[in-house]
Amino acid sequence: MPDTQVPDMVVARLPLYLRTLRYLESAGIEVTSSQDLAARLGVSSAQIRKDLSYFGRFGKQGTGYETANLRSQLEKILGLDRRWPMILVGAGALGQAVMHYAGFYERGFYIAHVFDSDLAKLGHDLAGFVVRPPEEIPACVRENDIRIAIVAVPSEAAQAVTDELVDAGIEAILNYAPMSLTVPRRVQVQQIDPVVHLQHMVYYLTGATRSSPPA
Amino acid sequence: MPDTQVPDMVVARLPLYLRTLRYLESAGIEVTSSQDLAARLGVSSAQIRKDLSYFGRFGKQGTGYETANLRSQLEKILGLDRRWPMILVGAGALGQAVMHYAGFYERGFYIAHVFDSDLAKLGHDLAGFVVRPPEEIPACVRENDIRIAIVAVPSEAAQAVTDELVDAGIEAILNYAPMSLTVPRRVQVQQIDPVVHLQHMVYYLTGATRSSPPA
Repeated sequence: MPDTQVPDMVVARLPLYLRTLRYLESAGIEVTSSQDLAARLGVSSAQIRKDLSYFGRFGKQGTGYETANLRSQLEKILGLDRRWPMILVGAGALGQAVMHYAGFYERGFYIAHVFDSDLAKLGHDLAGFVVRPPEEIPACVRENDIRIAIVAVPSEAAQAVTDELVDAGIEAILNYAPMSLTVPRRVQVQQIDPVVHLQHMVYYLTGATRSSPPA
Repeated sequence: MPDTQVPDMVVARLPLYLRTLRYLESAGIEVTSSQDLAARLGVSSAQIRKDLSYFGRFGKQGTGYETANLRSQLEKILGLDRRWPMILVGAGALGQAVMHYAGFYERGFYIAHVFDSDLAKLGHDLAGFVVRPPEEIPACVRENDIRIAIVAVPSEAAQAVTDELVDAGIEAILNYAPMSLTVPRRVQVQQIDPVVHLQHMVYYLTGATRSSPPA
């Protein structure tokens, strides 16, 4: 089935479905339904069925989805039937928090190398990673076929670091710096922006006429 | 205009519009359009016009939106015409990164107090915050009328901390721990999940028949 027509907003929802399926599986729930997933995710069950229909047929009318099977299929669709090495640029407070983040490996990713321009950090072992100088990024990316980078540097350094990553051949960047990055069209960027989540929630904290937050 | 009918997915997009408007304003771009915003955000211009129409009329056919005015209106709609104090629970690597995060204040939020159960951290000044024991959370929340909390503790502690925050009257939680939290319906939770963003991007790194990432 060709999937060249899948809207990006559909692709964006697949990891949320996957996260919920993994949770259900860990809780021992072997069968789920679009209605159950919908209630847990705050989207409509019709939306979930439509999203999944881009990729094939996964459930049977009236019997729902086998949790483990749908989880496994979504992993294949997303390209998570392998683990992806990443480089991390920035070994300050934020970078160290990223190094300690426990959720990467079991969900398809791992940090392979860490870089920082701070001479005081170079060569130091932080959370099991030896911090390397940014000049080594191009060779590291090339030799290890790395396509994904995490940017965890201060805002004022983020664009310059990004330009270097793009030049080195990186194709996907997860940006923790609180600013927008400019990249060529062939490079993807996603931003970790805690304020977007706070602003979303605060809508429901204001005004007596406001609707309730979603269940 | 009543806004009790606004779908949560619409509310979720408002902070993204706001972020882009703030960027345009800082770049000196005084007028924008739903087409321009659409191209920058990867959603359709019709979607943007429909989303905004829930809240009133902001532009004129053919002349677009005044950037500063629409930014200001969205801030009012979201409840950002004031600044919201937050408490932060967890003063480890992740919590310290959150303390250093530069993007809260100018976008409507600030960390008012920091808590950690680690005796070695108590009373210490980290990034300008004196770390306080979790037993003081209920009084702090009550006395300072705090409604928002950030959870930056290890996964194994996150649910217990959340239960304490809920008991203390917190209404909105931003969760950095890599796990789902269970809360009563009246409490909102949003999760910072870097892996969701990585999985989204990785879809476009696999397979020769895949579509290009959105511009």
